[in-house]
Amino acid sequence: MIEHHILIDEQHEGSWGHASVRASDKRRAPVTRKADFRDAMARLGAAVNIITTDGPGGRHGMTASAVCSLTDEPASLAVCINRNSRIHAAIEENGALCVNVLNGEHEELSGLFARSGLSMAERFANAQWERLANGTPGLLGALCNLACSVMSVSEIGTHTMFFCRVEDIRMGPEGHGLVYFGRSYHRLTSAPAA
Amino acid sequence: MIEHHILIDEQHEGSWGHASVRASDKRRAPVTRKADFRDAMARLGAAVNIITTDGPGGRHGMTASAVCSLTDEPASLAVCINRNSRIHAAIEENGALCVNVLNGEHEELSGLFARSGLSMAERFANAQWERLANGTPGLLGALCNLACSVMSVSEIGTHTMFFCRVEDIRMGPEGHGLVYFGRSYHRLTSAPAA
Repeated sequence: MIEHHILIDEQHEGSWGHASVRASDKRRAPVTRKADFRDAMARLGAAVNIITTDGPGGRHGMTASAVCSLTDEPASLAVCINRNSRIHAAIEENGALCVNVLNGEHEELSGLFARSGLSMAERFANAQWERLANGTPGLLGALCNLACSVMSVSEIGTHTMFFCRVEDIRMGPEGHGLVYFGRSYHRLTSAPAA
Repeated sequence: MIEHHILIDEQHEGSWGHASVRASDKRRAPVTRKADFRDAMARLGAAVNIITTDGPGGRHGMTASAVCSLTDEPASLAVCINRNSRIHAAIEENGALCVNVLNGEHEELSGLFARSGLSMAERFANAQWERLANGTPGLLGALCNLACSVMSVSEIGTHTMFFCRVEDIRMGPEGHGLVYFGRSYHRLTSAPAA
């Protein structure tokens, strides 16, 4: 099951499944029901990315759409990750990550990096990678690779927002965009140059 | 000119224009050139929203795509706003905002809420609104309206990240999604129900 912002990992599923929705329903007057929020988020389209990291904390990769541009001075991004996901501790320890922006041909790869039960080695074996300046794996053929260092973090409920400085950018070949909307993937035609 | 994450407002244009890119080029070895970062962000598709607020700080509205789901417990969003935009001080004073997720028919409205030189009254006159529980204007016909209270803020470079709790959700009619990618708008077909 792919959730609204595809921050899926095996430890993730329990907290997002029906059991926790039922638990939420038992509480008195929650401000916003989880199910309603997920239905709304299904209507907020977002680019699909594979977040990678490597270093002393190990090599990890996970599909995620909760990535947001912050400012271009300094060039920086926000990346939101569930604290129960396998990649979370690795990003904290490595202090570095790469946002690999997927193209329209990467739907299957997105699924592999979101699927529980696959080891990291199994996930990474399905694509070609290059080591970026900050040591993180850059997906060859991605629309772009954004190699980042973690500047600071904010913890919000079950998730951590990593504020990341973009240290190196690799532009890949032009291609279709891959967006998750309405609980399914959509391919965007590449636009003419501005 | 629509920039990569469409956080456009009239005070915004100077800091994003070619003059500042040239200024950046004169400095020694910037980690990431603005122009490169913008080119990369043009490849990160994002839903198009109109952010609104109302209260003691006045009624404001602005097109923005830098909106990101945080967690569903508590249901919360991150909204990134340039501190030079007109809406910034109003959100800070009102402590409330609404994320109106646009549908595929809202391309012209998106442009109006991004265009400099229009008063707020002129912008709002182009659509129908209802007052939500937190006092913010909800766009009728949006894919959904997410009425939020500001929980906390983080300042990053030129922008502020507002961490927002979602207090009320109105689901609008089903429709196509509106995504900005490759420096142009794209309509997404609405997906079958999960």
